[in-house]
Amino acid sequence: MIGTGDNRPIGVFDSGIGGLTVLKELAEQFPGESFIYLGDTARLPYGSKSPQTIRRYSEQNISFLARMNVKAIVIACNTASTQVPEPEMQGLPLYNVISPGAQRALQVSVHKRIGVLGTRATIASQAYTHKIHELDPKAKVFSQACPLFVPLAEEGWHSDPMTNLIVYRYLQKILELEIDTLILGCTHYPILKKPIGLVAGNGVELVDSGESIARWMADDFESGKLKKNTKVEGSQISIFTTDQSSHFNELALQILSPQIPDHFAVIDVS
Amino acid sequence: MIGTGDNRPIGVFDSGIGGLTVLKELAEQFPGESFIYLGDTARLPYGSKSPQTIRRYSEQNISFLARMNVKAIVIACNTASTQVPEPEMQGLPLYNVISPGAQRALQVSVHKRIGVLGTRATIASQAYTHKIHELDPKAKVFSQACPLFVPLAEEGWHSDPMTNLIVYRYLQKILELEIDTLILGCTHYPILKKPIGLVAGNGVELVDSGESIARWMADDFESGKLKKNTKVEGSQISIFTTDQSSHFNELALQILSPQIPDHFAVIDVS
Repeated sequence: MIGTGDNRPIGVFDSGIGGLTVLKELAEQFPGESFIYLGDTARLPYGSKSPQTIRRYSEQNISFLARMNVKAIVIACNTASTQVPEPEMQGLPLYNVISPGAQRALQVSVHKRIGVLGTRATIASQAYTHKIHELDPKAKVFSQACPLFVPLAEEGWHSDPMTNLIVYRYLQKILELEIDTLILGCTHYPILKKPIGLVAGNGVELVDSGESIARWMADDFESGKLKKNTKVEGSQISIFTTDQSSHFNELALQILSPQIPDHFAVIDVS
Repeated sequence: MIGTGDNRPIGVFDSGIGGLTVLKELAEQFPGESFIYLGDTARLPYGSKSPQTIRRYSEQNISFLARMNVKAIVIACNTASTQVPEPEMQGLPLYNVISPGAQRALQVSVHKRIGVLGTRATIASQAYTHKIHELDPKAKVFSQACPLFVPLAEEGWHSDPMTNLIVYRYLQKILELEIDTLILGCTHYPILKKPIGLVAGNGVELVDSGESIARWMADDFESGKLKKNTKVEGSQISIFTTDQSSHFNELALQILSPQIPDHFAVIDVS
C-alpha cells in the first residue's frame, strides 16, 4: 500500500469456470485492477455437495487467496456464497453474490414477483428467498433448480435448439407464475443468457451476478472502503486451477474474451 | 476365512451413483456375496479431472476398501479404470471395467466395428481403443464423449423425449460409421440404456460394464481364484459415500431396486 491506493489484486473464486463470467464483468468495470482467479476444478461441482463440504472447500479457497495477498475476495459461486455469508474473513472484505443479486432483483422488479434459477444446492439453501424477504417481506419468490444448465454451459451449447428446449422445460412452471424478474443464481448461467432470455421473453428482466456484484464494488471504491490500484504498469489477470484441464483453459479464453489472462497455473489448496 | 470359503465382502467403488448399476448386476449374479460400495460423492465427477488426480483419488478409495477387509475390489468407474490398470493392489485382486467391456464387445461384434461412449476423460484416455486393439488389431473403434449423459442420468430423465434428442445428437456421427456394437463406457450409462437402445436401433448390440464384469467374476469363482461366501446368515449390502446427499440416497434406491441396501453411511477417505 502506497499513499491512498492499494495495489494488491482482487481475489475471485468459484468451483470451476462459472465465476469467470463474474471476473470478466469486474475486469471490464475496473480495468485498473489486477485479479487472481481460483477455479477449484479438482473438486467441482459444488452444486451437488453438502453444506459442510461446501463451507470447508470455500474456507480453503479463501485461505489460498489470502496467502496470495489480495485486498478483497469475491465468492463468484452461488453455491459457495450460500455457505459463507460473512462480510469479512481473515481481515479481508468478502463479497458474496447472493446479497447484490437479491438487492438488484428488488430494484428492477415492478410487481415484486421474482424467479430464482440455481443449482440443486443453491435452491435447497433458499438463500435468495431469505435474503429477498429480509429486504422486502412482501415480495414473492419462486425457485427452480436447473441441474443440466452447468453441463450445457460447459459443453458450449449456448446457441442450440436443444438448449432452448431444456431451458423451456425448466422455466415453464415459474413463467406461469407471472414473474417479471429472474435471478441467474449460478455464475455459469450468464453463458446461457441468450437461450434463457429467449424463453423468458421481453417481459422478464434477467439479473446476473457479475453485474450486480460490480455495482456493489463500484460503491465501495466510491466510499473508500476499497482502495484503487495506483500502479502505472497496468493490471494483471492470473488464473489458478486445482486440476489440469485443457478444456478449462479453452473455455476460460472463450468466456473472458476480449480479456486475455496473463498467467495460468495449477495449484493445490487442500 | 473358514474352510475353502471366503466370507469377506466384495468392494466396489465409483465417483458417484453410476457404479450402482455394476453393484446391482453383481448382487443379482452373486446373491450369496456381501458388498461394500463406496461412492466418492464429495469429489465427483471424475470424468472431467486429470489423470493424476483420478489416480490419487482411486488409490485412496482402494485403501479405504482394503481397510474394510474386502476380498476383491471392483473399479466400477470407467474413468478410474483407465488410470488403474493393475490386476491387483495391496494384495487384493482388482477388477476394472475396461478389459471385460473390450473383450465382450469383440465377442458380440460381427463386423468388428465398435463404438465407445464415455466421459471426456475416458474417451481422451483411449483406454477402450487400446485394449480392443491389443485383443484384435484389425477391429475398428470409434469413440464419442457424451458429457451430458451423467447429469441426465442423475436428473432421472431416462424416459424423456428430450433425452432421446440429446442421445441422437451424440450418437448420430458414430452410427453413420456403421458400428454393430456399442460399449456403454461409463457406469452411469446403463441408466440411459432405453433411450440409447432406441436411438442405436436393433442392429447395434449394447455392451454394459456391469454385465461384462459379472461374467469375469463368475469365471474367477469357477476357477477358484475367488472364493465364495459360506456364511449362512445371508448377504449384506453396505453403501458408503464421502458426502451427505438425500438425492444420492433416493437415486441409489431407484437404481438398486429390487435390491435394498442394509446400511448407508458417510465417511472420509482423503
